[in-house]
Amino acid sequence: MFKKILIANRGEIAMRILRTCKEMGIKTVAVYSTADKDSLHVRFADEAVCIGPPASKDSYLKISNIIAAAEITNADAIHPGYGFLSENSNFSRICQENGIKFIGATPDQIDRMGDKANAKATMKEAGVPCVPGSEGLIDGYEQAAVLAAEMGYPVMIKATAGGGGKGMRGVWKAEDLHELWDSAVQEATAAFGNGGMYMEKLIVEPRHIEIQIAGDQYGKACHLSERDCSVQRRNQKLTEETPSPFMTDELREKMGAAAVKAAEYIAYEGVGTIEFLVDKDRNFYFMEMNTRIQVEHPITEQVVDYDLIREQILLASGTAISGINYLPKLHSIECRINAEDPFNDFRPSPGKITELNIPGGHGIRVDTHVYSGYTIPSNYDSMIAKLITTAQTREEAIAKMKRALEEFYIEGVKTTIPFHRQLMENPDYLAGNYTTKFMEDFVMDNKFNY
Amino acid sequence: MFKKILIANRGEIAMRILRTCKEMGIKTVAVYSTADKDSLHVRFADEAVCIGPPASKDSYLKISNIIAAAEITNADAIHPGYGFLSENSNFSRICQENGIKFIGATPDQIDRMGDKANAKATMKEAGVPCVPGSEGLIDGYEQAAVLAAEMGYPVMIKATAGGGGKGMRGVWKAEDLHELWDSAVQEATAAFGNGGMYMEKLIVEPRHIEIQIAGDQYGKACHLSERDCSVQRRNQKLTEETPSPFMTDELREKMGAAAVKAAEYIAYEGVGTIEFLVDKDRNFYFMEMNTRIQVEHPITEQVVDYDLIREQILLASGTAISGINYLPKLHSIECRINAEDPFNDFRPSPGKITELNIPGGHGIRVDTHVYSGYTIPSNYDSMIAKLITTAQTREEAIAKMKRALEEFYIEGVKTTIPFHRQLMENPDYLAGNYTTKFMEDFVMDNKFNY
Repeated sequence: MFKKILIANRGEIAMRILRTCKEMGIKTVAVYSTADKDSLHVRFADEAVCIGPPASKDSYLKISNIIAAAEITNADAIHPGYGFLSENSNFSRICQENGIKFIGATPDQIDRMGDKANAKATMKEAGVPCVPGSEGLIDGYEQAAVLAAEMGYPVMIKATAGGGGKGMRGVWKAEDLHELWDSAVQEATAAFGNGGMYMEKLIVEPRHIEIQIAGDQYGKACHLSERDCSVQRRNQKLTEETPSPFMTDELREKMGAAAVKAAEYIAYEGVGTIEFLVDKDRNFYFMEMNTRIQVEHPITEQVVDYDLIREQILLASGTAISGINYLPKLHSIECRINAEDPFNDFRPSPGKITELNIPGGHGIRVDTHVYSGYTIPSNYDSMIAKLITTAQTREEAIAKMKRALEEFYIEGVKTTIPFHRQLMENPDYLAGNYTTKFMEDFVMDNKFNY
Repeated sequence: MFKKILIANRGEIAMRILRTCKEMGIKTVAVYSTADKDSLHVRFADEAVCIGPPASKDSYLKISNIIAAAEITNADAIHPGYGFLSENSNFSRICQENGIKFIGATPDQIDRMGDKANAKATMKEAGVPCVPGSEGLIDGYEQAAVLAAEMGYPVMIKATAGGGGKGMRGVWKAEDLHELWDSAVQEATAAFGNGGMYMEKLIVEPRHIEIQIAGDQYGKACHLSERDCSVQRRNQKLTEETPSPFMTDELREKMGAAAVKAAEYIAYEGVGTIEFLVDKDRNFYFMEMNTRIQVEHPITEQVVDYDLIREQILLASGTAISGINYLPKLHSIECRINAEDPFNDFRPSPGKITELNIPGGHGIRVDTHVYSGYTIPSNYDSMIAKLITTAQTREEAIAKMKRALEEFYIEGVKTTIPFHRQLMENPDYLAGNYTTKFMEDFVMDNKFNY
């Protein structure tokens, strides 16, 4: 087992990793930028090394400084957390070359799954369902019509140079294709000087449902059920839950089997997540793989009773897994508490926390690195806490979330707490009836008094 | 279901009850003495009524004021918590007479189990094992010898007027009885002017193990496994755990069956606890019954996934139970954080909390009513928080407790945190090898730097 782990991250995830290391009797090294000198992870680590100024590129992303900190402190492993260098194959390779165990995927696995086109090709080979689409550019309307008929309507035609929705059209029936094709090509040519188009199946009312997997160094993998992360705003998850209210035992078995197949196909090492889009008929399609621990991992921990950071460390040290899958025994929900103003386009709201009351009691878990008097720097991600509730049923987990949000107060900065309070009253959310389009329709009540 | 519950208590248990009421959609009324006006339970309740000055007898124990508060606010039930009026049959009766549901045992059940002699007689009738002993006073040495032979050595002879160990002798073999009997009678006569003696079986290396039970209004009961509360100082519990490290499946089945038999014999209504002494050979003896929720109830909640306050409210509203018993699925430990100085005979240390960091993360639960800036009044119990850890194994729960205690800091008052830190390093505690005598031998390290 590792004797000393350097945690190459900050914020709540640095605290999260540090806690498990302490519980396992492993020494810890915190690294921090000058902006983070008063952070709890610096205070509670056995050793702490300043690795640079506030800008991430000069500190948390600066590989040479982090490797130097590991060498100075004699750390035998590095945990990268999420974000920053966690999916940087170069960093993983440099760790390897320096005889430091990178707690995560191998450089090859990161390379293979990090590039979207590469990942999709690999998953196709493995037999995992992917969103059907043209292989590269389409040679004009006639070919588009043949392809669309093959994959079935609705389809989405997309400009290869596209962005901001330009040169993009959803096509629901064959008779509309010709007209929409021409207008999309025209628009793309005008906007980008490039009329090249490709096509994908249009996923109707998609949900973002991901499967947590774990793989050992001997090629064996298992899954730990799903998380529903469909409540997103500009691809940023706001709240997650497990089980998904949309899940069935049959679908979980199928998606779980596909995720395990994907992991075993690349002999994946460590914990990871396979993200899928699920359409309204419960067809599922591979979207991407995250080769690291995820922000929302605690809800899985709550319902399967396993510590995923511990599992990560055990897998990195060579522990074998049994191959048994883990099914949810309870229901768990996470709300991300960000220092953002939900009434002002979720604009970041850094600054000093002047008063703080963190909720507690039965079924409540809070992961945070902040305290009363802490100043949130403006340099990093705005997430300041994760509020997680766990209960026998979804209804009870929501009731717990409502009362915990009521108890949670943070003064000095704006937070997403009022957003979550309103979300927990939304009839569609309460009915479990939401897709990735949910936030487009969700209107905050500006009169909310908080 | 009740529409509004008045919580006739203060501190963490008032918060605990309030939280579950909120989760169940039941309105809450807090009552408070003037010393508690800044307490969180006052802040978070739907309504709050001041019931008197700091002295308990003029506020939390003043039945007329509490009933008046319930009438004014139209509360249809009262939850008494623990301590104060929770085992006061008169209060339970007055609630009944005023058409307010008392969430707890009936007046008759409290009377029957509240008096120790009465309770023991009732349990004997029910066939629950009790500590064997003489029925009343013994008529001299000869009768003592017969009795001791019947119940088996070792026995304890005790002065009926006794106290402070005077007139009390443990007798391990028959040949010692005569001499020890005479000296005890002599000592008692000299000390109390009363040489009357009785005899009980001496329980060797006793552990305090209690069984959580629940009973409905239709005479059916079940148990929710045990809690080991042997780490006590002057009959005050300091830490509790479940499962007991001393427990076997066979003993749990026997003790559980005895507890259910006891509850059903008196048609017990609500949640309650049967406390047993267990000797080194795993014989168990009824000690007393608590006809209320207990301080240490959260560890049971953690390992059986049930909310006991919710169960209490459901049972009081007439819900029937299935009769299925609940077995522990995990391991959970509670440390009571008291505002007491463990280096100075655990003397109370009230005052203002100037800084506070409450631990969090995986497997951590904290129940508290305090916050940074809160002033602990000197009028009440010194418990300010309960720190509860839960994990797959006892070893992991202890590891979590160690790291959580490290993160827990409270400035401005002395607390029992350093005591618990040392306890979690004690070889006997770590081995699960402790009895109710444990604290007599436990020596605090005065040099502990905290």
